[in-house]
Amino acid sequence: MTRKNHRFTLAARPVGLPKSTDFAFEEEDLREPGDGELVVKVQYISLDPAMRGWMNEGKSYIRPVALGEVMRAGAIGSVVESKHPRFAVGTHVTGMLGLQEYALSNGEGLTPVDAKLAPLPVMLSTLGMPGLTAYFGLLDIGKPVAGNTVVVSGAAGAVGSVVGQIAKIHGCRAVGIAGGADKCRYLGELGFDAAIDYKAVDVKAALREHCPNGIDVYFDNVGGDILDAALAQLAPRARIIICGAISQYNNTTAVKGPSNYLSLLVNRASMTGMVVFDYAPRFPAALAEMAKWMATGKLRSREDIVHGLPQFPQALLKLFTGENHGKLVLQIA
Amino acid sequence: MTRKNHRFTLAARPVGLPKSTDFAFEEEDLREPGDGELVVKVQYISLDPAMRGWMNEGKSYIRPVALGEVMRAGAIGSVVESKHPRFAVGTHVTGMLGLQEYALSNGEGLTPVDAKLAPLPVMLSTLGMPGLTAYFGLLDIGKPVAGNTVVVSGAAGAVGSVVGQIAKIHGCRAVGIAGGADKCRYLGELGFDAAIDYKAVDVKAALREHCPNGIDVYFDNVGGDILDAALAQLAPRARIIICGAISQYNNTTAVKGPSNYLSLLVNRASMTGMVVFDYAPRFPAALAEMAKWMATGKLRSREDIVHGLPQFPQALLKLFTGENHGKLVLQIA
Repeated sequence: MTRKNHRFTLAARPVGLPKSTDFAFEEEDLREPGDGELVVKVQYISLDPAMRGWMNEGKSYIRPVALGEVMRAGAIGSVVESKHPRFAVGTHVTGMLGLQEYALSNGEGLTPVDAKLAPLPVMLSTLGMPGLTAYFGLLDIGKPVAGNTVVVSGAAGAVGSVVGQIAKIHGCRAVGIAGGADKCRYLGELGFDAAIDYKAVDVKAALREHCPNGIDVYFDNVGGDILDAALAQLAPRARIIICGAISQYNNTTAVKGPSNYLSLLVNRASMTGMVVFDYAPRFPAALAEMAKWMATGKLRSREDIVHGLPQFPQALLKLFTGENHGKLVLQIA
Repeated sequence: MTRKNHRFTLAARPVGLPKSTDFAFEEEDLREPGDGELVVKVQYISLDPAMRGWMNEGKSYIRPVALGEVMRAGAIGSVVESKHPRFAVGTHVTGMLGLQEYALSNGEGLTPVDAKLAPLPVMLSTLGMPGLTAYFGLLDIGKPVAGNTVVVSGAAGAVGSVVGQIAKIHGCRAVGIAGGADKCRYLGELGFDAAIDYKAVDVKAALREHCPNGIDVYFDNVGGDILDAALAQLAPRARIIICGAISQYNNTTAVKGPSNYLSLLVNRASMTGMVVFDYAPRFPAALAEMAKWMATGKLRSREDIVHGLPQFPQALLKLFTGENHGKLVLQIA
């Protein structure tokens, strides 16, 4: 039996915001798996800001997606055919399955998951890469101690919402920066101590108000003016985690460097970059701890699920316009 | 006997490069020291880029110099009159004595020095704050290990020249960035492995050439485009020390933030600010180690001595035009 596979390949390197013509929607006949290979039916695909970076040429922490190649994406699915000793048919697996209905794989980079542990979209969210990014970035680099003020941008997003909740679990004051009243209300529901709507107020003034003793840990997902506003309000020996810079990913001009970076000197503070893949050996322990927090209601997850592979180009844009509420996931019919 | 004291006070907050009219040269009758006070005859005054920052209003790691106040400066001199139990007449002391011929002090912040240990100007240079800044910034924040590539900007200056030499002592490859052929030749004499003349070559290309395996430690004294060039050539897990930003101190527009800061993310690198005063309890041990290196010829010091207090406004500018060769010191007749 030949399976028809539908997929999105990268057709052009986007300039600015990705357009639908930057991708090609293709149909192919999936070849039979050879020895040591398996076929995964993709069920949910994670849409992440980092994908924008993978579309660019140039040296980065991961090689760029080649033109004509299936667009890279984290996803979860079930094994429907297998000639691989470690993956039985019916097993759920997660990994970089790509923007497609079926992934033919040699098993490399795939991790079996226990589908009974949590709904599958949660495994792409709080119990997936975004949650792990929040966990290791905040705890390993931010090193928060009880009583610290932790500020996170992109706070209503998949990473940011977990950062704030873990900060609270560790006895910190959590201040979130997000766009719009809805998202700020959501931060309140999650137990953040304060929410700053960057679309409505002056972020610098709001940080002064909500962080009177300065910011001890700033977890940055956005870059740009908000990073500068946080730099202006650092506490002595503050730690900044550079996780992303969504405000800059679609720039057609140079990235805006943080003009207030000399605040690092004044405050003997540090700014450190992180990539979650580095922590892979510690993923199981972190996931176990986060699953326990979820089971006891200390950690909540919200997904924004868009239905249908063809929706990908439009759905991706929600990340950059800020329209998504919770982790953006594409459900494959 | 009433002493006549001559001094420079801050008359106006400079905009851009400090002008001579930003300072007032004044004569005063020095009052007699009271109980617990002493009078120091200032012999050498340290001229440092950081002084430019002290002239600005606004929160920093140290309070700004007030208008009408004697301009703050580190200096060395000898006690000529004392009603203080800890400081006998004839003792040499160092501290923030200010831009003046005589300093009346209650002893706070003054440290006695052994004038036989090294020439007095060296105690404002390699065996003073600049040397200590290099020592703690490089070793405590940069954490170089043998075989690492250490790059320093402002490499022919009082801090930079010590950074490169300590890097060599620790078995690292030392690459210096300085302005002009003379300064680059001097870096060669000091044992740097490579010198990059930023006035003559493309710094980014030169860093690629001289740091083929990337930069493990970058000690930044200058900021601006050179910081960006270094960011573009980081090795994984690189450490950047933010010690200063002389290229930005006289800006009349916003500081240029490092547009390549996302290289921190790609390379899991860090950028950390430092202020030497934090390490005060460890100064004696560091000075002892550096004095030993100097005695064995492993560490060399060079001073650029300008004669006469009235020369101060012109002499200070040499720091910003890059005309000084070695630590800039004002000798008081």
